[in-house]
Amino acid sequence: MNIPDYMEQVGRQARSASRAMARADTATRNRALLLIAAAVERDAALLQAANQRDLDAAHAAGLAAAMVERLALSAKAIATMVEGLRQMVALPDPIGEISNMKFRPSGIQVGQMRVPLGVIGIIYEARPNVTVDAAGLCIKSGNATILRGGSEAIHCNRALAAIVAEGLLGAGLPAHGVQIVDTVDRAAVGALITMPQYVDVIVPRGGKGLIERLIREATVPMIKHLDGICHVYIDAKADLEKALPVAVNAKCHRYGTCNTMETLLVDRAIAASVLPLLAPLYQEHGVELRADPTALAILQAASYPHLTAAVEQDWATEYLAPILAIKTVDGLDAAIDHINTWSSHHTDAIITEDYSDALRFLREVDSASVMVNASTRFADGFEYGLGAEIGISNDKLHARGPVGLEGLTSLKYIVFGHGQVRV
Amino acid sequence: MNIPDYMEQVGRQARSASRAMARADTATRNRALLLIAAAVERDAALLQAANQRDLDAAHAAGLAAAMVERLALSAKAIATMVEGLRQMVALPDPIGEISNMKFRPSGIQVGQMRVPLGVIGIIYEARPNVTVDAAGLCIKSGNATILRGGSEAIHCNRALAAIVAEGLLGAGLPAHGVQIVDTVDRAAVGALITMPQYVDVIVPRGGKGLIERLIREATVPMIKHLDGICHVYIDAKADLEKALPVAVNAKCHRYGTCNTMETLLVDRAIAASVLPLLAPLYQEHGVELRADPTALAILQAASYPHLTAAVEQDWATEYLAPILAIKTVDGLDAAIDHINTWSSHHTDAIITEDYSDALRFLREVDSASVMVNASTRFADGFEYGLGAEIGISNDKLHARGPVGLEGLTSLKYIVFGHGQVRV
Repeated sequence: MNIPDYMEQVGRQARSASRAMARADTATRNRALLLIAAAVERDAALLQAANQRDLDAAHAAGLAAAMVERLALSAKAIATMVEGLRQMVALPDPIGEISNMKFRPSGIQVGQMRVPLGVIGIIYEARPNVTVDAAGLCIKSGNATILRGGSEAIHCNRALAAIVAEGLLGAGLPAHGVQIVDTVDRAAVGALITMPQYVDVIVPRGGKGLIERLIREATVPMIKHLDGICHVYIDAKADLEKALPVAVNAKCHRYGTCNTMETLLVDRAIAASVLPLLAPLYQEHGVELRADPTALAILQAASYPHLTAAVEQDWATEYLAPILAIKTVDGLDAAIDHINTWSSHHTDAIITEDYSDALRFLREVDSASVMVNASTRFADGFEYGLGAEIGISNDKLHARGPVGLEGLTSLKYIVFGHGQVRV
Repeated sequence: MNIPDYMEQVGRQARSASRAMARADTATRNRALLLIAAAVERDAALLQAANQRDLDAAHAAGLAAAMVERLALSAKAIATMVEGLRQMVALPDPIGEISNMKFRPSGIQVGQMRVPLGVIGIIYEARPNVTVDAAGLCIKSGNATILRGGSEAIHCNRALAAIVAEGLLGAGLPAHGVQIVDTVDRAAVGALITMPQYVDVIVPRGGKGLIERLIREATVPMIKHLDGICHVYIDAKADLEKALPVAVNAKCHRYGTCNTMETLLVDRAIAASVLPLLAPLYQEHGVELRADPTALAILQAASYPHLTAAVEQDWATEYLAPILAIKTVDGLDAAIDHINTWSSHHTDAIITEDYSDALRFLREVDSASVMVNASTRFADGFEYGLGAEIGISNDKLHARGPVGLEGLTSLKYIVFGHGQVRV
């Protein structure tokens, strides 16, 4: 297979299909989602057989256990996929929404209409459930899609692609509205991210290594998420009834998620009273603490068992593990300064009862999500009420934070005139 | 001067200043604008002397007359700059605006806050008035700015930069809130567009050659405008009382602007009645017509003097001159298809009294501005009521169409909690 020619064809087909996808009305796009859901249910055994071929190959290739686990398509995963598609049907249609139509002195009336972006390229790991989730979100938002899943899931993805195409055709939409890149050749990714004439945006979902490669090479804009170095700052005016549960939840609810706290900041004025209360809670979860000199002395006095001195690198590390960096700071300004210097601009929270400190933190911390008296773990499309989530964006342009259907759309200006000309 | 080191320093200073710019309240940012306006008035003679040095050098170097004209800083241009700054003061402050705060079932309340993008890099030609306009818009929107104007304007830009710095300091803002790149070395542009750690977005204002170079080389996202191949489509159901003035205004009001019509589409069913009415109007303006076979025959019969047969390249050409391509099409679908194939996705208009055709055109034409019964010349920040315009975006992500202050901002999520944790 000649990869550049093949990807050129995939791109051209996507661009062409994107017009019919954008034109389709709400009922047609919802019908496609329901047909796909029904076909996934009907072909569950067939999908699991295809998945078994991928799993056999993965075992034979000696893939890491965590990767094999993500690759597996259980009956429960299939049911979740189907349920997800049916929930998307219930979401309001973002497309065509007209807002802010205002008359201007010239007599024209100007406002904006929400429209699909066009063609979305999604690059993800070997997780077959993402194939259906991503296809569903793009269909719902009127976009054409090119899906490039991890090569280890190729058999299952082919079977899913056939089902999606069947659903699109059944609803009267073009089969090329959703295409999978049907090759395991990695050059296909390089082609996908450098054809802005066919692809309007790339949404990469994967590890830091993948994203960093894409940043270097892509000429198509991306909605991307790099890492989550999240902070909780316990202010001198914090209510400890709130501070303790939040500081524990933000670290210990899940260790591997991007909205998990990695560094706890504590106002120096209350460090000696707060840290001894937190220590037994973290000890219960077996959390290793890496503390600055002030916190270290307090925690040593409290005989905390898993304790080391923090080094500068700790402020820049996303542990994704039961490890927490702790730093004492001299008040709000120092906390904001530490966060704006070391945070990955994902999610940061303050715990305080002080009105002015809360408002300053909200305004001055330059992150996608900024919270008062809540766990960073809430930074999530479902928790925010977006209904679905295609990813989380660390970028400032276009979509910032959890990205739902609206992030896959654009606003164009529309003008109602009555023959007006410019004078 | 070592350019990489110098630009690294400029970038670091901008990032550092951006925090104070973002933190500054409305009154402080407005005060800076007023101080700059007053200093520009005070130092008008000094600015014109600096401009004269640039003009002398331009004449000596044999610069094209059009370029020299743009370079000149007349008394009127100075008055317009000052007036522009004072108008920005009157615009509502976009920063800090909180919207859509909604309670979620978990008890947290989630919404969004409008915040500055951070550091804006602006690359433009040798037009000293842009230095002050762009600086003003960025100050108003709470951003730090790095300005890279055409090297031919370096003396005037240095004088303006000193005035801007004086205004910033007078208002208690950092002098590095606005910096000019004080070198004529072109390597500085290459550095500016590849330091995403310091620059959040690049706004290029200039010719197609410059923009194409930036697209190839930039790793910082851009809000960019490439070209304007705009269409007016006269539908079979058009009211000719509206069609004729709009078709003339869209072409003849200004030839060199990006929102000028370059191709006129006419429904075949009415071509023989419309084109003979349009011909004398275009003839009055000395417009050369390049017509497809059907239109050509009609216009030949009407003895139109400046007439040639259109070739495919005409559909893809931004003339910026008294030249118009004309094509007859078989109805709405063919018109939309032509536009979506050949338009630069800038601005396209339909002239029709048909409700369904108007709504389909608005929805299906994939351009930044789509109009019914109005001249494409209205696609402009001031005409749209944005109050000011930093540029026009042909991109779909982030800002599309005329870009005002909001385009220089971003929405972050904010959460009001009361100790909530994720369960």
